[in-house]
Amino acid sequence: MEVNRNRISDWLKNLQDSICTALEIADGKSTFEEDNWVREEGGGGRTRIIRNGDVIEKGGVLFSAVEGPAPDFLFNESQHSPQASSKEKTKNRPSFFATGVSIVIHPANPMVPIIHMNIRYFEMPAGTGGDGGVRWLGGGIDLTPHYIFKEDAAFFHQSLKKVCDKHHADYYTKFKTWADDYFYITHRKETRGIGGVFFDRLNEGDGMSFEKNLAFWKEIGENFAPIYTELISRNKNRSYTEKNKAWQLLRRGRYVEFNLVYDRGTKFGLETNGRVESILMSLPKTAGWEYDFKPEKDSEEEKTLALLKKGINWS
Amino acid sequence: MEVNRNRISDWLKNLQDSICTALEIADGKSTFEEDNWVREEGGGGRTRIIRNGDVIEKGGVLFSAVEGPAPDFLFNESQHSPQASSKEKTKNRPSFFATGVSIVIHPANPMVPIIHMNIRYFEMPAGTGGDGGVRWLGGGIDLTPHYIFKEDAAFFHQSLKKVCDKHHADYYTKFKTWADDYFYITHRKETRGIGGVFFDRLNEGDGMSFEKNLAFWKEIGENFAPIYTELISRNKNRSYTEKNKAWQLLRRGRYVEFNLVYDRGTKFGLETNGRVESILMSLPKTAGWEYDFKPEKDSEEEKTLALLKKGINWS
Repeated sequence: MEVNRNRISDWLKNLQDSICTALEIADGKSTFEEDNWVREEGGGGRTRIIRNGDVIEKGGVLFSAVEGPAPDFLFNESQHSPQASSKEKTKNRPSFFATGVSIVIHPANPMVPIIHMNIRYFEMPAGTGGDGGVRWLGGGIDLTPHYIFKEDAAFFHQSLKKVCDKHHADYYTKFKTWADDYFYITHRKETRGIGGVFFDRLNEGDGMSFEKNLAFWKEIGENFAPIYTELISRNKNRSYTEKNKAWQLLRRGRYVEFNLVYDRGTKFGLETNGRVESILMSLPKTAGWEYDFKPEKDSEEEKTLALLKKGINWS
Repeated sequence: MEVNRNRISDWLKNLQDSICTALEIADGKSTFEEDNWVREEGGGGRTRIIRNGDVIEKGGVLFSAVEGPAPDFLFNESQHSPQASSKEKTKNRPSFFATGVSIVIHPANPMVPIIHMNIRYFEMPAGTGGDGGVRWLGGGIDLTPHYIFKEDAAFFHQSLKKVCDKHHADYYTKFKTWADDYFYITHRKETRGIGGVFFDRLNEGDGMSFEKNLAFWKEIGENFAPIYTELISRNKNRSYTEKNKAWQLLRRGRYVEFNLVYDRGTKFGLETNGRVESILMSLPKTAGWEYDFKPEKDSEEEKTLALLKKGINWS
């Protein structure tokens, strides 16, 4: 099964390249800077950051491919004697491999939405514990407009639905619901934005082979750039006020709350001593908090807040 | 033991009053606004917020006194049959009571430090589970200068040492070490600021009665205002640059990281459906993040960063 590793990580590297090019063209001013990093336990990554652009205030497009003995959380401890030392346990474990591309873009203009995408592949070959090996695909893409424009929300969801529908009749509905549940700020009783799709542990089944799911997963990745550059193009020349910028700060504050309190990738990364600067590239250049902020009645801010709910049919 | 409840919560309310008055005088412009709230399961609080002052950009001085059936995390589940329903379990549980004052002040001028204090009292009388009842005192006060001035750091720690030394020869060293460990941003390998003191579950022992510890705890609370107003007075008229403001944003970003990722009070509050606006009053009006920020060599920013370590003798 190891043949997947390079095939998939090479594809992801190319995807990172093409997304960075598309975003540089859409921005028109800034270009990506690159940091290559190596993981002590195996593998590494290629972190690309763009900042202070004409459109993008701060954003990252990250590739990584890491491997090594499976960490505790991945591994069924019961397969080993509880007396085994930590080193012994690690030694007997199968090696895991994980590769992915993660993107967060914070635009300067509050009329342009924040976007996030992550697609990832995970593989753990058969080990000594009697397990047969696993591999799966996961991913998600979601949009966080500071101000929700219904035509943009419809375009975003219709585009995702089109991609999903090509591969499986149930995927859009299933993965849209999953996104509503995942990108949810429980303590605020608010969704992070208008959602999108989220899926995990796709392998085979439900009428789909692994290769068919891989084709679906690739198409999600390939559609990131055309979808987001269209949203940039529609909104980057909209004018905005100081009040719009103040609201953007508050919405970014919520984004920070989601990422630091709930996001599984962020929490896992921080807990396992991941590369902090890559993990926290998702945070905006600036964010803000006001005590007990209430938008004015019938304002655009109030209308947006009212739409931060699960289960809305955007398309 | 219930007699403690009103005695202590009344004292805390008075403390909240006197601290608010002292901070209004020190600020010279803004005054506190008050929100009273009620907790469905019992008790409530008095949240006081100050903002857009001459000195204080955003701050809160919060009193709360809550009670009700002990939540899971406080209660030894093994005392009950695993078959008991959730309602039955709650019914048989002793009622807890917790009261405290929590403060976070974010100043506008980056030369004035951020300060935090929390003092709390917890009580759970003997229940039906064979337990004998508990009560304890906890607290902490720590300073987060955007720029560390050694004479201010010395003043802060010497003041806390003076309070501690009056009550127990070991308290300052013990509680200063505890603060270094608690106010630590593990993923950044940085302390939040210059620490202070932190303690929990003080009752009796170590040559101290509960009443003696109560006297110590009260004196920590009473010294908050004189210590912080002195630090305001020393620094509020210092001039600052745009660069200093940009650095303040980054230090506030770290403050947000600590509070959302590590702070036990915040995490517990969010997980147990606490009053979000009170819990998150600790977050600054604005905060910021830069990818892989490195201060200039020999700059004041670099000097401050180098001092965000555990185990420094500030006094």
